[in-house]
Amino acid sequence: MTRRRQEAAAGPLSLFASDNYAGAHPEVLEAVAAANEGWAPAYGADEWTVRLRGLFHGLFGAAETFPVFNGTGGNVTALAALLRPYEAVICPETAHINVDECGAPERIAGAKLVDVPTPDGKLTPGLVRSRLVGLGDQHHVQARAVSISESTELGTVYTPAEVRALADTAHAHGLVLHMDGARLVNAAAALDVDLVELTGDCGVDVLTLGGTKCGLLGAEAVVFLRPELAEGYPYVRKQGTQLASKMRFVSAQLLRLFEDGLWREAAGHANAMARRLAAAAAALPGVDLAYPVEANAVFLALPAAAIARLHERYHFYVWDDDAGVVRLMCSWQTTPEDVDQLADALRAAVVG
Amino acid sequence: MTRRRQEAAAGPLSLFASDNYAGAHPEVLEAVAAANEGWAPAYGADEWTVRLRGLFHGLFGAAETFPVFNGTGGNVTALAALLRPYEAVICPETAHINVDECGAPERIAGAKLVDVPTPDGKLTPGLVRSRLVGLGDQHHVQARAVSISESTELGTVYTPAEVRALADTAHAHGLVLHMDGARLVNAAAALDVDLVELTGDCGVDVLTLGGTKCGLLGAEAVVFLRPELAEGYPYVRKQGTQLASKMRFVSAQLLRLFEDGLWREAAGHANAMARRLAAAAAALPGVDLAYPVEANAVFLALPAAAIARLHERYHFYVWDDDAGVVRLMCSWQTTPEDVDQLADALRAAVVG
Amino acid sequence: MTRRRQEAAAGPLSLFASDNYAGAHPEVLEAVAAANEGWAPAYGADEWTVRLRGLFHGLFGAAETFPVFNGTGGNVTALAALLRPYEAVICPETAHINVDECGAPERIAGAKLVDVPTPDGKLTPGLVRSRLVGLGDQHHVQARAVSISESTELGTVYTPAEVRALADTAHAHGLVLHMDGARLVNAAAALDVDLVELTGDCGVDVLTLGGTKCGLLGAEAVVFLRPELAEGYPYVRKQGTQLASKMRFVSAQLLRLFEDGLWREAAGHANAMARRLAAAAAALPGVDLAYPVEANAVFLALPAAAIARLHERYHFYVWDDDAGVVRLMCSWQTTPEDVDQLADALRAAVVG
Amino acid sequence: MTRRRQEAAAGPLSLFASDNYAGAHPEVLEAVAAANEGWAPAYGADEWTVRLRGLFHGLFGAAETFPVFNGTGGNVTALAALLRPYEAVICPETAHINVDECGAPERIAGAKLVDVPTPDGKLTPGLVRSRLVGLGDQHHVQARAVSISESTELGTVYTPAEVRALADTAHAHGLVLHMDGARLVNAAAALDVDLVELTGDCGVDVLTLGGTKCGLLGAEAVVFLRPELAEGYPYVRKQGTQLASKMRFVSAQLLRLFEDGLWREAAGHANAMARRLAAAAAALPGVDLAYPVEANAVFLALPAAAIARLHERYHFYVWDDDAGVVRLMCSWQTTPEDVDQLADALRAAVVG
Repeated sequence: MTRRRQEAAAGPLSLFASDNYAGAHPEVLEAVAAANEGWAPAYGADEWTVRLRGLFHGLFGAAETFPVFNGTGGNVTALAALLRPYEAVICPETAHINVDECGAPERIAGAKLVDVPTPDGKLTPGLVRSRLVGLGDQHHVQARAVSISESTELGTVYTPAEVRALADTAHAHGLVLHMDGARLVNAAAALDVDLVELTGDCGVDVLTLGGTKCGLLGAEAVVFLRPELAEGYPYVRKQGTQLASKMRFVSAQLLRLFEDGLWREAAGHANAMARRLAAAAAALPGVDLAYPVEANAVFLALPAAAIARLHERYHFYVWDDDAGVVRLMCSWQTTPEDVDQLADALRAAVVG
Repeated sequence: MTRRRQEAAAGPLSLFASDNYAGAHPEVLEAVAAANEGWAPAYGADEWTVRLRGLFHGLFGAAETFPVFNGTGGNVTALAALLRPYEAVICPETAHINVDECGAPERIAGAKLVDVPTPDGKLTPGLVRSRLVGLGDQHHVQARAVSISESTELGTVYTPAEVRALADTAHAHGLVLHMDGARLVNAAAALDVDLVELTGDCGVDVLTLGGTKCGLLGAEAVVFLRPELAEGYPYVRKQGTQLASKMRFVSAQLLRLFEDGLWREAAGHANAMARRLAAAAAALPGVDLAYPVEANAVFLALPAAAIARLHERYHFYVWDDDAGVVRLMCSWQTTPEDVDQLADALRAAVVG
Repeated sequence: MTRRRQEAAAGPLSLFASDNYAGAHPEVLEAVAAANEGWAPAYGADEWTVRLRGLFHGLFGAAETFPVFNGTGGNVTALAALLRPYEAVICPETAHINVDECGAPERIAGAKLVDVPTPDGKLTPGLVRSRLVGLGDQHHVQARAVSISESTELGTVYTPAEVRALADTAHAHGLVLHMDGARLVNAAAALDVDLVELTGDCGVDVLTLGGTKCGLLGAEAVVFLRPELAEGYPYVRKQGTQLASKMRFVSAQLLRLFEDGLWREAAGHANAMARRLAAAAAALPGVDLAYPVEANAVFLALPAAAIARLHERYHFYVWDDDAGVVRLMCSWQTTPEDVDQLADALRAAVVG
Repeated sequence: MTRRRQEAAAGPLSLFASDNYAGAHPEVLEAVAAANEGWAPAYGADEWTVRLRGLFHGLFGAAETFPVFNGTGGNVTALAALLRPYEAVICPETAHINVDECGAPERIAGAKLVDVPTPDGKLTPGLVRSRLVGLGDQHHVQARAVSISESTELGTVYTPAEVRALADTAHAHGLVLHMDGARLVNAAAALDVDLVELTGDCGVDVLTLGGTKCGLLGAEAVVFLRPELAEGYPYVRKQGTQLASKMRFVSAQLLRLFEDGLWREAAGHANAMARRLAAAAAALPGVDLAYPVEANAVFLALPAAAIARLHERYHFYVWDDDAGVVRLMCSWQTTPEDVDQLADALRAAVVG
């Protein structure tokens, strides 16, 4: 598999390249402006952060919440807080922590990642158990965490039962379950469940919760669903360079997204746009869905010539150069017209 | 010296506790809103970041600029990019990297800090030379960088000549000069010089440039004044969890602050408020300026009883419990009336 | 694959469990005693170390040599000296650095290992190229080294042409080739070539040379075959806790092994014993050679019941519990009688 | 203070340069040879290591013992096992971990060292308390360990009461006391106490016990005097590259030194030689003892010209170039004649 990341060029439209190419939701901007009221204590003692912690305590059931700047920062500090020096993380080969964080888990958290090939980006209890090797052997890292992404980097979604099974497997062997929830909102919207139903209720121990891809300027949170695991985390977050000084502006974004269901509306819209795109694409000759479209990502297998033609008009990532698989992302900002125009372009590219 | 950091309580006024207790400048908020125009490539390929890089290339003379989230992140990734595993940083004992970053330089950058006691937070060539020991000795870390804060954590300011002398000393021994410029704007405004006159023109090699304390929501930048030192830094920034996805919202803040001199106005105002406070305080019996007031920080030596009384109305940090030294910070948002009210309270606290 | 490492028990014979269960060669002990002549400078300025460096400079063609305590220490410090923070190592999934060093490369050298499944423990140019992904992409670690073991952890041996092909591939992409030569002597003896013919002559850049498994008390060396890569390594070795104070006693061991061909005799004997064992085993019903026996390791696939019976008399490692593959190691100290007794026991275990 | 480490040259006698310039005690060599009996399990399952663990369990009172290669390795892995990522170590500025381990504690253990100037290399409860700052403050590293060297790098010795007072101070604040006992034997011999009387009986929690400087080829041990602190240490030792494969040869050395009091004889002799040297030196005009001679190190303040003249005949370290302080070390191998010759040379150098 050869992944090709293309730098954005001036001409092609970039709106399907990534969900973080979208802007911020107008209501989020308003919330940030509203938080700009005079003085507020720094480093999390402000009222917005206090409210956010209260909100998530309720939403997730007795959780401890820590806003951070970005997903890599959340993932790395969460893992750093969980692991002793010789402990390791079992994750899918396609995990963001494994392929898209420039070695941060290894270097910053000092953790070995034990990565597992999967057909669809999803771990299973059996795959986890296959890597539970060398336990008690001083020569071997000791598995301490299982890390999954919900939704996955391939656009697939774990059901609550699947998450529960992974949590049970992890817990049975003394491991914790970490969820990279950069797109948890898309998964929850797709499954039409509450956030806790996909996390705490299923046994997830620690969550990196994303907001940036769902209409924020830039804000994520580490949420300890088992609060006792948060012990020491404030120091790890600071040391991990993820402690915002004017934290109110981070927390205000998260508050707005999660306090009255804006997340579900925004993520649900993105998912709907992906389904619309998938339906149009699947009807084209020579175009296949590379993975089930379960959240806001559409992976298509296309002829090389079609990829080249489509690249003339659109900027997007080729996920697997050899197999001709491309990724098209929908966001809260994508419109049906955007999708239909892309579908037209795709049709033209395929038909030639 | 025993430093006491007090959590903010509901009652006392917190506006002098820190310059990051202030909000964002309204024009900065407007700039962020203006940057929220549809789609933009992520991770720095957006037009705001491109413009910022161009602006700083000019402002600093051929510099390479990388926006980051916060000062600790900027400092740690800058040092990580400069140092080989066995290389060390000479810094003042009072440096932010030494006392306020929870060991991030050591753990995240893997760097030993060789800290030097100073009378006023400022290194001198002689102090640097005193720590140039063990060079070529395999048992000893090899000094590679000198790091100074401008303005310092004690509110003092290096003159251009002083920075130049340190750069010359560093370069003469094969070291680079790093500047933690979390409050560079305050120093430059105080000295009435351009930013380059305190940095590139004086031989500074790498700068962590602050903006958050001067009216931003949260945005800093690592600026390589010798561009060849930036080689590899993009990877270090990503690995160091400091690569913003929607970078346009970070860059737009910096652009607004630096493109037409807003920084000088805002920082100059903060400095003026500090001078106003210092003048009022110095006139009080039993109150001494612990350090020269050269930027936006006022350090006062007070009787213990006066500290206690002042704490009833104001939230601020006791910098040295034994010596009765407290820190009062002014910001772009501090008004003359705020200062006068504090001066009144201080008078009442001292007179008893 | 589930590997099972058994602690040694009192009853079973352990001589085939590992080649480091063997003792030290008597001539090595004599050499150590001979080095105990009065005073000698510490940390490598002694005459034995100077002689060793000269010997290897010749043996390997202009190499820089640094004695270390053990293989993990040699591997980790060699990689730490080669890599910048965001650079990675491509290695076989079965590599010692990947599975038997308790995460030391990740945590101590800060390096991500990109591990590749192989049929026989050997990388190929094609396998290496398949992992040269994300080059120039700031989100992705940058491959900097290829690391191979000679002989491999599965007892197979790279030919000089195979090493050369890997070196060419690595160099063509700006990478270096590191060899974990814990059992290089066995490979060289098996191929009947000089050490340089398998290393420097083939383009190997850095070698971790083993001695402990071939009759030393405990001594290995990092050998830079491209001396310019050794820049800074003395500091990395010290920091990596691998600088011996009384280094003469480490160097004297290596000198004895390598100065007049003792290594070839000792390693050749171990290899011969492995071939003798393999021949006997392969003739038994239900016993298969799991991998070609090319050095001093014999991997056999056995019925589970036979493994259990053999474990009653011998201590050895089950390499793959599911596949019934066990590892039997021969050493300089193994005798033909030892092998024949094991073969008898194996026959009895298989026949039941 | 400018320390100057001179490489050994051919001419000058080096026997006073360091106690690790001495060789191995003949009985130690014999013990190593005796341990070379056929096969033995690797990695610590051998009978010598088992015996050593039993011996130390008794000598130190219920301790857990782990042989390692060298002192830096012992110190770094012990600290790595004790500390969470954001925890720090308070130590004297002159500590070996601070100045002679090339930044290993910072980079390998990830620990910030909070170093304290001392008059004589010894911490006191007051000095420790002065650095117990920022506890509970997320911006600041959290002190977790106090580390002292016994005897110190300046040749001074803590009494049992002094160690006890430090342990009490540490424990009162939730810290542990680590002892770098590279020369614990010299301190114990000087005080005529048993090893446990200076360690476990005084509240020391973790000890790095030296042997190399007292007549071994190279062997040290990490001894957990509170065994529950050893949890996880086997993995940390392996990861820290300090797990010997043929551990019997390390353990046999330590067994010989500690099983019947050889350590006391050897260390006591070294101490006596230091006292002999100190007495002769103190009688010379212009020669001062820079520190009390309490173990096997003699620090002399000499005129610069005398240092230069003495360097013509002897190789030794100038500890403080500015103050003219040199270090002369005695060892188990130093003879009265060696001392008297040095005293003569010193007299000649001083008188001119």
